[in-house]
Amino acid sequence: MDEKILQLLRESPSVFLSGEEISRRLRVSRTAIWKRMKRLRTLGYEIAASTRSGYRLIRSPDLLTPSEIKPILKTKWVGKAIHHFHTLDSTNSKAYQLALDEAEEGEVVIAESQEKGKGRLGRQWFSPPFLNLYLSVILRPKIPPHQASLITLMAAVATADAIQKFSGLLPLIKWPNDILLRDRKVAGLLNEIHSETDRIHFVILGIGVNLNMEEKMFSKEIRSVATSLKIEMGQTISRKAFLQFLLQELESWYSIFLKQGSAIIVKAWRDRAHIKGRRVKVTSFGETLAGIAVDVDSDGALILETEDGKRKRVVAGDIEYKRKLRVKSYEL
Amino acid sequence: MDEKILQLLRESPSVFLSGEEISRRLRVSRTAIWKRMKRLRTLGYEIAASTRSGYRLIRSPDLLTPSEIKPILKTKWVGKAIHHFHTLDSTNSKAYQLALDEAEEGEVVIAESQEKGKGRLGRQWFSPPFLNLYLSVILRPKIPPHQASLITLMAAVATADAIQKFSGLLPLIKWPNDILLRDRKVAGLLNEIHSETDRIHFVILGIGVNLNMEEKMFSKEIRSVATSLKIEMGQTISRKAFLQFLLQELESWYSIFLKQGSAIIVKAWRDRAHIKGRRVKVTSFGETLAGIAVDVDSDGALILETEDGKRKRVVAGDIEYKRKLRVKSYEL
Repeated sequence: MDEKILQLLRESPSVFLSGEEISRRLRVSRTAIWKRMKRLRTLGYEIAASTRSGYRLIRSPDLLTPSEIKPILKTKWVGKAIHHFHTLDSTNSKAYQLALDEAEEGEVVIAESQEKGKGRLGRQWFSPPFLNLYLSVILRPKIPPHQASLITLMAAVATADAIQKFSGLLPLIKWPNDILLRDRKVAGLLNEIHSETDRIHFVILGIGVNLNMEEKMFSKEIRSVATSLKIEMGQTISRKAFLQFLLQELESWYSIFLKQGSAIIVKAWRDRAHIKGRRVKVTSFGETLAGIAVDVDSDGALILETEDGKRKRVVAGDIEYKRKLRVKSYEL
Repeated sequence: MDEKILQLLRESPSVFLSGEEISRRLRVSRTAIWKRMKRLRTLGYEIAASTRSGYRLIRSPDLLTPSEIKPILKTKWVGKAIHHFHTLDSTNSKAYQLALDEAEEGEVVIAESQEKGKGRLGRQWFSPPFLNLYLSVILRPKIPPHQASLITLMAAVATADAIQKFSGLLPLIKWPNDILLRDRKVAGLLNEIHSETDRIHFVILGIGVNLNMEEKMFSKEIRSVATSLKIEMGQTISRKAFLQFLLQELESWYSIFLKQGSAIIVKAWRDRAHIKGRRVKVTSFGETLAGIAVDVDSDGALILETEDGKRKRVVAGDIEYKRKLRVKSYEL
């Protein structure tokens, strides 16, 4: 109902819409409409009201509801269905359940806050309300399961591109899926996959981007390794506007991946990663390896040259840069 | 309650247990017990009753309930928790939901019949009641996702070994996960995986074994390519007894895999597969390849030598033998 009222108000931005007309078109009482208007104001909508002329929408809050987002989306199919929640355990868990229940490719789950936001390897992702972006996209790529890590690289490239196009800043990618500005983490990805031996049922692309966090909002432990677009750009970020960039880049890179295969994705990722030649320490399945990062191979694995000159292929793990700013993963 | 009554009756197999004593020990009325006994008889339990002496369990039906199975299980942790259902959409779907809800490694879901039994690649698995075995085991291996296909090979080896030890017959494996007797399919596996980019959350090991199907029960299309242990052994199979063998082999091969790695699994699989040198046709992601099966590599992929002498690595797909008996996948 809120959405329907807002839609009517948006249709006539410059004139007042009488309560009588809204009442007639939505088939609800004028008292019901009056109550809804009150509620919308508490959500941050600025609505002018006059007993004679009716209602007019002056300004919308930066909420990520479907009615706020859809008018500005330029995508073809990503975000055609948006599931919006004020709070969720995690957008990934919700999207996962929706996908098990046959949700379609491109459906998006957005939460204003997460109670158990998921970081990689079972960690939590700090998810306070209204400041940032927490979303999950359902994909159903027809690729073999062993290529699932390419979806992670693809999403990292898309997120980095969205940040660059939106901000003009140059984000780098930390293997496999953190996005950094000034060597500080501004976004993170967590992809969950449901597959059988020979095919992928779906991938949940979980993305968290720090948009309007301020330095003092980060806990002490992560303050030196975390950042937000607001901190980097020196101005408040419109979450809606950023979301538009992000979904567009995702749609575009995903279709490039499906049409042109992995090579172009791996190349774009390498261009962003600046990992070649960096001295790193990798923790992978309980084992720690130190060495020089040589490259990332076509399956998205890290090629490491260890101190005894041997080359190792690391498919999964945590990486730590040993030179320049030390960057630690800052999931809480 | 049924389970508790059966447990009491099993504790004194040779003497009658009075209704009064059962009533006292389970704290329910004698009328309630009388009703339960009636119900148990409709389920196939043969229970002697005498107004003076009470009740005695004569014979149990071949049901796969926890109380029937647990006394004969020899496993350490596989099947410690058994979820039994008369019918399910599919045991895999149920196990998947349980695993999302934190079910532990080794929990087993069994159904007497499945309404939407799952075969590979979205096909159905014919699952009539009481005749066969339909089960799913929850595993949580600490291995990278790209090794998930090894779990499929491991499960195929375990199932083949269980069939061999139980029947004395020699089953072969058809890549990647069908079990054949006389080139006819006797069992199939469907593994579903929940992972993120760098770790597996859980694997659902779905196994269907044709135990007491008779030839005429198979549809015409699959009659020539399907079989059951009853057909091959010429006698009715105790499902409980077979289940015991199967869970024991699974537990044993899984722990071998975790302790000793992939090589021993791939070797055991190859010994069973008899695939080397066979002329095959493989359909993989819409593409059809014909050639000679050279081997299976350490990740479980099929190595194919095509007619122009090139070697191709096939990670997923459907295989068809071109010589001897033609074996087609017979999922409906």
